[in-house]
Amino acid sequence: MRKIDTGLPSSYSRRDFIQLGAISAATLALQNSDTVAAASHADSHRQTHAQTMIDVPYAAMNPRIGLIGTGGRGTSLLTEFLASDGQVVALCDIVPEKAEHAQSLVQKSGQKAPTLYTNGDHAYESLVSRHDIDFVVIATPWNWHVPMAVAAMKAGKHAAVEVPAALTIGDCWNLVHTSEETRRHCIMLENCCYGYNETLVLNMVQANLFGDLLYGEAGYVHDLRELMFSNAGEGLWRRAFHTRYNGNLYPTHGLGPVANYMGINRGDRFEYMVSMSTPARGLDAYRRAHVPAGDPKYSERYINGDMNTSLIKTAKGRTITLKHDTSNAHPYDRYNSIGGTKGVFEDYPPRIYFDGPNGKDAWTDIDPFKEKYESPLWKKEGEIAKKLGGHGGMDYIECARILYCMRNGLAPDMDVYDAAAWSAPWPLSLQSVAQGSAPAKFPDFTGGRWKQRNGSPIGQLS
Amino acid sequence: MRKIDTGLPSSYSRRDFIQLGAISAATLALQNSDTVAAASHADSHRQTHAQTMIDVPYAAMNPRIGLIGTGGRGTSLLTEFLASDGQVVALCDIVPEKAEHAQSLVQKSGQKAPTLYTNGDHAYESLVSRHDIDFVVIATPWNWHVPMAVAAMKAGKHAAVEVPAALTIGDCWNLVHTSEETRRHCIMLENCCYGYNETLVLNMVQANLFGDLLYGEAGYVHDLRELMFSNAGEGLWRRAFHTRYNGNLYPTHGLGPVANYMGINRGDRFEYMVSMSTPARGLDAYRRAHVPAGDPKYSERYINGDMNTSLIKTAKGRTITLKHDTSNAHPYDRYNSIGGTKGVFEDYPPRIYFDGPNGKDAWTDIDPFKEKYESPLWKKEGEIAKKLGGHGGMDYIECARILYCMRNGLAPDMDVYDAAAWSAPWPLSLQSVAQGSAPAKFPDFTGGRWKQRNGSPIGQLS
Repeated sequence: MRKIDTGLPSSYSRRDFIQLGAISAATLALQNSDTVAAASHADSHRQTHAQTMIDVPYAAMNPRIGLIGTGGRGTSLLTEFLASDGQVVALCDIVPEKAEHAQSLVQKSGQKAPTLYTNGDHAYESLVSRHDIDFVVIATPWNWHVPMAVAAMKAGKHAAVEVPAALTIGDCWNLVHTSEETRRHCIMLENCCYGYNETLVLNMVQANLFGDLLYGEAGYVHDLRELMFSNAGEGLWRRAFHTRYNGNLYPTHGLGPVANYMGINRGDRFEYMVSMSTPARGLDAYRRAHVPAGDPKYSERYINGDMNTSLIKTAKGRTITLKHDTSNAHPYDRYNSIGGTKGVFEDYPPRIYFDGPNGKDAWTDIDPFKEKYESPLWKKEGEIAKKLGGHGGMDYIECARILYCMRNGLAPDMDVYDAAAWSAPWPLSLQSVAQGSAPAKFPDFTGGRWKQRNGSPIGQLS
Repeated sequence: MRKIDTGLPSSYSRRDFIQLGAISAATLALQNSDTVAAASHADSHRQTHAQTMIDVPYAAMNPRIGLIGTGGRGTSLLTEFLASDGQVVALCDIVPEKAEHAQSLVQKSGQKAPTLYTNGDHAYESLVSRHDIDFVVIATPWNWHVPMAVAAMKAGKHAAVEVPAALTIGDCWNLVHTSEETRRHCIMLENCCYGYNETLVLNMVQANLFGDLLYGEAGYVHDLRELMFSNAGEGLWRRAFHTRYNGNLYPTHGLGPVANYMGINRGDRFEYMVSMSTPARGLDAYRRAHVPAGDPKYSERYINGDMNTSLIKTAKGRTITLKHDTSNAHPYDRYNSIGGTKGVFEDYPPRIYFDGPNGKDAWTDIDPFKEKYESPLWKKEGEIAKKLGGHGGMDYIECARILYCMRNGLAPDMDVYDAAAWSAPWPLSLQSVAQGSAPAKFPDFTGGRWKQRNGSPIGQLS
């Protein structure tokens, strides 16, 4: 298997991740430089002659699912797939108790007990090599997404991977090339694309209510300090990324929906970006306020600037402002904004403004637009989605739509090219920040096919 | 007099400005390149040996005022100065009726009729050379700010100039050097610094409620399409700038207050910026919808990207997102945001969030903070300010404070270094946009004195 450059030591154990805080500052700086150097060679990456996966339909099937990662996120996804009668035949986690709990959920749904794989970091390789699995769902720490997705595709399975799909430009290409060569899809589980407001606004954009699109704003501003300093769940690994990298460490939740509004990879594409980080203050301040003296966490040095802001330019000249801050006091915000010649939508809270009907300079509510523009996905399944509740229902809509596409032999809504493009701001922001906000180019992962492609990125449920 | 590079033909008449729309695209592109080249040589600008004007007090006086420009903005300023018993001895405008109307306002206030200067573009030179004027207030189209302020200072008068103070880095330096050499102040009339919310938040920042400051957001998003296509007022000249330049054409309203929160030129300074523009669509779309076929305005080609977004990095590593859009449907917004380790304020509408007291992720109202943190300026004069009403009262507070500083022999709140730094994003955004968002450095207009200086930029009225 091709070496995966995650910027982390290849021998590290998922369970031991948190002890990496003790690595010296010099080592971290070197790793960071390596990442930057790798990213700057993005355009010289090898070209393959494999055919595109754009608009390639799944062979119609009711997929047999293997799930890697049964922590908080994996368990939530499992619940959503089970709610759509997804068949779950195998589960993998490095913590046996978590896998067993997930197994009990499958049994409660009326299916037989799925096989468990819990024997260490590489147990997932046994899961993906089974012959009775069609679809591998991956909900593990970020740096494991690429090796697991690649292994799944190479074993003949379609893959779905949590966000972000990849952490380096080389690994973005790795996903693209592996998908093309194996003829297996690798989709990213960007649930926010299926949110109520996001699908509503996508319909309004496609009805041309905003005129010529010009700018968007996206972000992930979420106070995760308590979670990052907990001794469970993401607290076991997420904080460590803040000791290694300085940039946007979670670009896709805000960016995916805005990319869909703009038709990125469907007539437009990300061309280049610039990025700027504030100093890193929030995690250290939180530690001083909440962590007892003598705790090993005091050996960590946080280098990721608290608020990272990037500007992305598209081939059509549009711009996207992209933010990331998980280290400070701030209300949750993904921005989720789109503006054009005729009007603008902004979220958190949702509000809208159009030429004409509104009073001058007065935002109005989005409710009057819901009857006409609500997504058919939410019209059909909104009640059950809200009842299940995963992130307000978007998780159920996402999983239901994925199974619908596979069962009906459709192409996935979003594909490996979207996963690569939306993940690329992770390494490109590191590169730009390290180079004093110099512009960083996006590779064209589609090989020029974004120009001819059109149509909506989000389909329906019937 | 040193040649002033406004990027506009030196021989053009203010009255004829609108006819410049007929200039060829090639000429405009050349002018734009010249501006960029000038800006990129900012750091090599000559250094003088004149002493700084930082913290230099006015000689105490009740200043005799000469006003250049008695259009909409000049008349408003006149009203505010008269409300503080300002003595107005001379008025200048290229339109005699406008000057006469302003003259009548002075007389109505009980003062004798000020002398009028209305004989063409250079009548202001006669006004500034009078021996019975101490203070020249300039409210003319943007490209006249520098020649008029320079002439006033060289004639021994203090100057106050509308926003932006200057349009090129060379002209920013010109104001700084002229102020230092003549020992006369040149202040910029950035009224937003005296707004109710802006002075409230400044007090809260100085009381350390937000912790270590990290990021701010500023902007001028104001749908000026109707005004820009009118055949009066700013419609006579503002639109023409959109045929010549691509960048942020009005940076100071949002930026000044955020610069004050961060103590720019008082312990921190702007270091560099990157900028990105969307395509230019809004003005052409408005024209097609509202201007009859055959109108000479159809000879104009708009090149200023509708939404310009810039990121500014300060010496302390903080970041400011800066926006400009006057060409599309969008509610008025200056953003006026400041965030730190303990919390964040955002405006339009004003809302606040702190670690601790708020419910998690819930913005709260700013009203509970007003009793303790309302600016003494507004406590003392808020009633009369709101009654006069200029931009919600901020104009009166600004003018009252300027006269207070002069009458009491204080240094001005903000000085020529602030005027230069806040205006610099005009040319630096053009430069960065023209160079594919490459970073553009701010000159240090203070000559290093920003490091030692401290204290609040806004003083009191008693």
